[in-house]
Amino acid sequence: MIHPGAFITFEGGEGAGKSTQIRHLARELEALGHRVVVTREPGGTPFAEAIRAVLLSPEASSDAMTQALLFAAARREHIRALIGPALMAGSVVLCDRFTDSTRAYQGGRIAPEAIEASIILATSGLEPNLTILLDLPPKIGLARAQKRSAAVDTFEKADLAFHEDVRARFLAFAKGESERFAVVDAAANEASVAAVVLATVQDRLGEHLAEMAG
Amino acid sequence: MIHPGAFITFEGGEGAGKSTQIRHLARELEALGHRVVVTREPGGTPFAEAIRAVLLSPEASSDAMTQALLFAAARREHIRALIGPALMAGSVVLCDRFTDSTRAYQGGRIAPEAIEASIILATSGLEPNLTILLDLPPKIGLARAQKRSAAVDTFEKADLAFHEDVRARFLAFAKGESERFAVVDAAANEASVAAVVLATVQDRLGEHLAEMAG
Repeated sequence: MIHPGAFITFEGGEGAGKSTQIRHLARELEALGHRVVVTREPGGTPFAEAIRAVLLSPEASSDAMTQALLFAAARREHIRALIGPALMAGSVVLCDRFTDSTRAYQGGRIAPEAIEASIILATSGLEPNLTILLDLPPKIGLARAQKRSAAVDTFEKADLAFHEDVRARFLAFAKGESERFAVVDAAANEASVAAVVLATVQDRLGEHLAEMAG
Repeated sequence: MIHPGAFITFEGGEGAGKSTQIRHLARELEALGHRVVVTREPGGTPFAEAIRAVLLSPEASSDAMTQALLFAAARREHIRALIGPALMAGSVVLCDRFTDSTRAYQGGRIAPEAIEASIILATSGLEPNLTILLDLPPKIGLARAQKRSAAVDTFEKADLAFHEDVRARFLAFAKGESERFAVVDAAANEASVAAVVLATVQDRLGEHLAEMAG
């Protein structure tokens, strides 16, 4: 998919501040004259939100491949109905989680080829222009997430080990695809993380964004 | 997946009599001493039924690949939670629609490789021991289905052409995989179709069923 827009995804563990930082960046980009579309996965459309509800329901399957297939269905619809048209219209799309979350969360339990097969069926090859990885030790992130939501209650050792693995996978992806990824230390305060994110976006996509604002 | 059971799927267009014929065959096989599990796609488990509800909801996506991915997720869970354990326990599983329905209904609008990729992610290679194709001209089948349900109301030319295509694809699969498929003329009356189905099952799987019944 060749498009005149800019597709920026935010990745990272629970409590890394993805939605907060997306809000900051959206304001900054809008101030620069860009049309900005903020969205999230899984979801973004009524249909994809319905799939999200199934994924998060009590009877949801714990099978990683089933989850990956549902994410793929939701993602395909999300791209078809929202992300794709916005990019074609020349908008900046800021998306809270995308394919790398599938790779990081389901990837520990399924063969990489199966994960990639499910991803390509969903995206037909659409990739972010830039992926901001908000990196944070899971212990800090989960404590933040716990404060925010009553839903995150128990904090067991098994959970922590899983989230450490997720973090390690995210960092490995960033190392393997350093052109697409930027790793931002998310442990600092909100304002300084926002400043680093904005500087990173300008550094990586500045030229393209200037042309877009044209 | 190597299992001691027998996995028989029923395929065909709307109104071909799949669920009716499954009921007949289940009774006959139970009378022969088999444990029989009757199920259907998409569905069969609470989770898969929730996905079915999304698939059939008014805001459902009309994108064939999105549909195929949802069917794949539902199917995987169906196999994991119900079909797989039943086959491992030596039951006869009779399933109303399976992978061939995805091939026939979504297959006209997606590349065959993409369909097969979604199917293999769902099934990990599990195939029916026998697939009964209840074949019927769509005009007759849709008229039957219309009588049964108020939901099937309009009967437009475009629909008929689509169902003709579906029928042609089913028949092509049966020709291509004649060892797995048996085509049964579903235009006859219920009792004679049931007799042909039973004779077909005994002809194709009789030895295996005799061993299973011990």
